[in-house]
Amino acid sequence: MGVNTQRDHASPRRRVVIIGSGFGGLAAAKHLRHADVDVTLISKTTHHLFQPMLYQVATGIIAEGEIAPTTRVVLAEQRNATVLVGEVVEIDLAAQKVRSHFLGRTTTTGFDSLVVAAGAEQSYFGNDQFAEFAPGMKTIDDALEIRARILGAFEQAELSEDPQEIEKLLTFVVVGGGPTGVELAGQIAEMVRGTLKGAYRRVDPAVARVVLVDGSASLLQAFGQSLGEKAARRLEELGVQLLLNRRVVHVDADSVTVHAKDGTDEVLPSFCKVWSAGVAASPLGGQLAEQSGVKLDHSGRVEVGPDLSLPGHPDVFVVGDMMAVPGVCGVAQGAIQGGAYAAKAIKAGLAGADPASRKPFRYWDKGSMAAVSRFYAVVKVGKVEFGGLLAWLAWLGLHLVYLVGYRNRVATLWEWAVTFFSERRGQLVVTVQQGVARTELKNLRHKLAELEKAAAPPTA
Amino acid sequence: MGVNTQRDHASPRRRVVIIGSGFGGLAAAKHLRHADVDVTLISKTTHHLFQPMLYQVATGIIAEGEIAPTTRVVLAEQRNATVLVGEVVEIDLAAQKVRSHFLGRTTTTGFDSLVVAAGAEQSYFGNDQFAEFAPGMKTIDDALEIRARILGAFEQAELSEDPQEIEKLLTFVVVGGGPTGVELAGQIAEMVRGTLKGAYRRVDPAVARVVLVDGSASLLQAFGQSLGEKAARRLEELGVQLLLNRRVVHVDADSVTVHAKDGTDEVLPSFCKVWSAGVAASPLGGQLAEQSGVKLDHSGRVEVGPDLSLPGHPDVFVVGDMMAVPGVCGVAQGAIQGGAYAAKAIKAGLAGADPASRKPFRYWDKGSMAAVSRFYAVVKVGKVEFGGLLAWLAWLGLHLVYLVGYRNRVATLWEWAVTFFSERRGQLVVTVQQGVARTELKNLRHKLAELEKAAAPPTA
Repeated sequence: MGVNTQRDHASPRRRVVIIGSGFGGLAAAKHLRHADVDVTLISKTTHHLFQPMLYQVATGIIAEGEIAPTTRVVLAEQRNATVLVGEVVEIDLAAQKVRSHFLGRTTTTGFDSLVVAAGAEQSYFGNDQFAEFAPGMKTIDDALEIRARILGAFEQAELSEDPQEIEKLLTFVVVGGGPTGVELAGQIAEMVRGTLKGAYRRVDPAVARVVLVDGSASLLQAFGQSLGEKAARRLEELGVQLLLNRRVVHVDADSVTVHAKDGTDEVLPSFCKVWSAGVAASPLGGQLAEQSGVKLDHSGRVEVGPDLSLPGHPDVFVVGDMMAVPGVCGVAQGAIQGGAYAAKAIKAGLAGADPASRKPFRYWDKGSMAAVSRFYAVVKVGKVEFGGLLAWLAWLGLHLVYLVGYRNRVATLWEWAVTFFSERRGQLVVTVQQGVARTELKNLRHKLAELEKAAAPPTA
Repeated sequence: MGVNTQRDHASPRRRVVIIGSGFGGLAAAKHLRHADVDVTLISKTTHHLFQPMLYQVATGIIAEGEIAPTTRVVLAEQRNATVLVGEVVEIDLAAQKVRSHFLGRTTTTGFDSLVVAAGAEQSYFGNDQFAEFAPGMKTIDDALEIRARILGAFEQAELSEDPQEIEKLLTFVVVGGGPTGVELAGQIAEMVRGTLKGAYRRVDPAVARVVLVDGSASLLQAFGQSLGEKAARRLEELGVQLLLNRRVVHVDADSVTVHAKDGTDEVLPSFCKVWSAGVAASPLGGQLAEQSGVKLDHSGRVEVGPDLSLPGHPDVFVVGDMMAVPGVCGVAQGAIQGGAYAAKAIKAGLAGADPASRKPFRYWDKGSMAAVSRFYAVVKVGKVEFGGLLAWLAWLGLHLVYLVGYRNRVATLWEWAVTFFSERRGQLVVTVQQGVARTELKNLRHKLAELEKAAAPPTA
């Protein structure tokens, strides 16, 4: 394979490289559709991911295809855009090049303008060893893995005769009380009490314990005290146990240990754990910091200028979950608006505008929503806050509108109708690959590393 | 973990154990719904698989959930049925017990009547080393793997500058001219010329070469000469290249070698290969043969008596792809009817009927259908044969009817409407797990086995 540099030749048109196919990257690409530029979007997945609905894939409501349209098909008609699949491993600001890897193949792509929108990964706050036992909720693979673990727990419980083991298998712990954690805990509760009701003979899914742990005193911090309490009450009605003011201090294959503010530790025996407690921006931010002297915040986000560019590099923008902009937390709207802003700045540059004349990026907070359960959501738009069925209908409508670009709006509406009215779920498939092989892969990697370490000469 | 034997106690009711959740096993279970028996269905997957539509998952038309409803949810209302997930590793006819494994857990289940419906695997006719390079089409994992390989080939071609490599990446070889091979080749051709049209910038998917190889002189042997020729013409119109009278003699990562009847060999450079050429019945047939003296045919199928039972074991039935019954090839209808027959025989036994009085199993051939492309199928019902749009409409209607039991009929109809009219496909997601990790897993297993072999003392 080796290196190929076909994308490195001088182009008569301005070369815009976008890293990432999430909300930020895709928005930037689309806003450049009428611009006289060559856009190259580089992404490590072949799809754009509608991440806010990932929990619905994990809990079997919708198929992964409904929230993950193929990026190059989305951009097929935009003739100035090229999609390259690959993981960006190096950004070279001085040489204006980006290097990416895909299946052993290295590609170098030159740029005149760069939009870095590589997103964020799950953060375990320095406890990366938790990841093996408590997957995050950032990718389609994560969602399918979590689906396999939820259903795998019940299958094992059905075969077990040991009450302690059954308790462990039927305790589901979600760490993190933000929208993803709240929505996932709500769905697991509805799934076990509705969808799976009567499907087992020895185990009653209704006795399953769903626990939501958060370090702070209330859920949904970004929504304010009142909505947080509404969501908490709704979850408790569904039977979710809330452990607030608790910090997770240990996670292993069989348990989670939470540390309360009063100093006591509690061990929760649990087979299936999900981590949605924190994010860390893409490590590409570190490369930008090294080469430009820009600072990163505590989540690894890049402290960009008011025009989302790197100080001293007016043609390099950082958007989405990677940008540190006061007042913008890691939500889709922030990324979409950031990507659009960068595209507009690039277009202004084509028309001869001076980067110094750029108006600062202004985030328009369109509000926040979280669907706690079927028929119940909480919505905050400016000072307007409400929870309940009306909020849920608003959530439903808005999410369908945002799916407009994708052909699956009808399919999704149908799947929702089925699940919300009948409690059935159409997408409960567990593949061998997600259910068993992923664990085996981890074990083999580990074993091999140990064998290689043991075989290596001690001086090496 | 360890062994548990909770299902081994004497039951006041007759214990019927069914191995397999395919067409045969599920039909047997459902036909026992009003019988005064305890049914235990043991299956290594959590889902029932509508295998005839698997090629549509592989080519991104439908989501896996649409053809793989969770078995225990399907049987939730049937209170006399219990579903156990596990791979059956031992059948003990003398002790009337079945032993199964799931995630390190062993379960032993006693039976009074046994229905063995464990199906068939892909057969490589003694060349199992081909499997790594040319996956079969028997499971959801297979279909998702093939989807990842098809799309992965295009992604790599888009990054390549080497014309020879691009030729290899854009040559798709399907081995086996039965319904699965024909339908898959047709769909790959439609996908590359329709769905993917315009999605790549350097590569034109329309130049992709789709090759269908078969050892005999015509396609769709079971449909007869005339329909086989119709299907062949339709595939050729779609640009599929037919290599008939060719036997595959070698497959590796980069190529397929076919041997023609005139003695010449041809090497086809190809990255993505699919094997749908043959089947071998589940190895559980070997255990039955050993313990009962029954014979297996050349495909490993069990030569059952006229009542589908094992000679000398009137309470042990073998149905579906595992049964060798003259005139019944491995199709869904044969399995469904076999499962239903076994259930009826068990019910008759409850009423005191003598096994010797059983009427022989009679297969009612309801006909065969294959959807060669959108708007074109071939249908054979008795002496009636036709191909074209009308046949395709018949195929469409019948497959929807057969999906009735599943809630996804509406979803599937919608997905079909989208794909057949707009050529778009909603399910093109490739997960890391299917796209990359499966290969890594194989490599690691191989490497580890070699290391362990090297580390073992030579005398061991």
